[in-house]
Amino acid sequence: MPKRVDHEDRRARIADATWRLIAERGIEATTMRAIAESIGMANGALKHYFPDKNSIVRTAFSYVFDATNERVRERLRGETGMDALWIFCEEIMPVADLTDLEARVVLPFWQRALADADLRRLYTDSMALWRGQIIGFLAEARDEGAIGTAMSDELVAEQLLAMLNGLQALALLDEASATREVQQRTVAAYLESLR
Amino acid sequence: MPKRVDHEDRRARIADATWRLIAERGIEATTMRAIAESIGMANGALKHYFPDKNSIVRTAFSYVFDATNERVRERLRGETGMDALWIFCEEIMPVADLTDLEARVVLPFWQRALADADLRRLYTDSMALWRGQIIGFLAEARDEGAIGTAMSDELVAEQLLAMLNGLQALALLDEASATREVQQRTVAAYLESLR
Repeated sequence: MPKRVDHEDRRARIADATWRLIAERGIEATTMRAIAESIGMANGALKHYFPDKNSIVRTAFSYVFDATNERVRERLRGETGMDALWIFCEEIMPVADLTDLEARVVLPFWQRALADADLRRLYTDSMALWRGQIIGFLAEARDEGAIGTAMSDELVAEQLLAMLNGLQALALLDEASATREVQQRTVAAYLESLR
Repeated sequence: MPKRVDHEDRRARIADATWRLIAERGIEATTMRAIAESIGMANGALKHYFPDKNSIVRTAFSYVFDATNERVRERLRGETGMDALWIFCEEIMPVADLTDLEARVVLPFWQRALADADLRRLYTDSMALWRGQIIGFLAEARDEGAIGTAMSDELVAEQLLAMLNGLQALALLDEASATREVQQRTVAAYLESLR
């Protein structure tokens, strides 16, 4: 089925070009035309894959979310509990050039999700997945005797999820205060406090 | 100087109308025309007060930020330490109709601040003010013997600030999980863990 493969391949190429454009130039400058140009595709052909801007933003966010999760998976190999949780956090906090770029997609995604139920559903599903992962790592950490906090794992997961979301905004918009080092110390100290 | 008073009064009326429009209808629908109509002002007259959309978003965010701080100040009367810190958090978390509406201005503000240095400066100043307040409350709480955490007040402030920022997105976009009750339990448990 070469045609099908082609289609999926092209969608992936568009998604990759799109999230980078949004991250580097901003959502306003990322027009259908700019995307088409960046991959040398006709504007009309692009519309065949993505009918409108929200479908593109949705795909770009999905792409970034999947890429984050894939990196976590790759780095996890054998790690469990608190070590695994730290890897997870490191791949979400904007503490590297890549995660900083990713956060530049997250902020416009949030704004658009306010008025788009499809985007909200994608966000809700994404957060549910992360909650589950965090709770899984915490359960391993309890088994390993690595944490002893009296707080429930569910509450810890909510706190950490809120922190990781908040750092997307703080790191990009208040970068002199929420430096990469401050972000890392902030989250590391929180995880340490669970021991 | 009745003219000066008039001008300030009118700006305040526009700002009040604007943040509510953004919160209720979204940033896209909040055009200069919609704002002018909502307060029965000619479009041209409005431009005399605000030249473009970013100047309006800036004013709306300032208005919301000032309103939040004013509510905190009013509720504080005599409260100090952890009680004061809880009041502060309660007025920022989207756990009431008003704070939920306010968060609907914060998300588009963040997105626009990515590409606007003036908006970023406003955010940076706002966060600096909040950091200072949180650290002040924590210092009082230490004096009162209400907290004994080994973490520095600066790190606690960063964690709490990140959490409060993150809840703006979670509460609006993942409302089935980050319900008002969950938000309150999440932050209350965190403050409790500092004792």
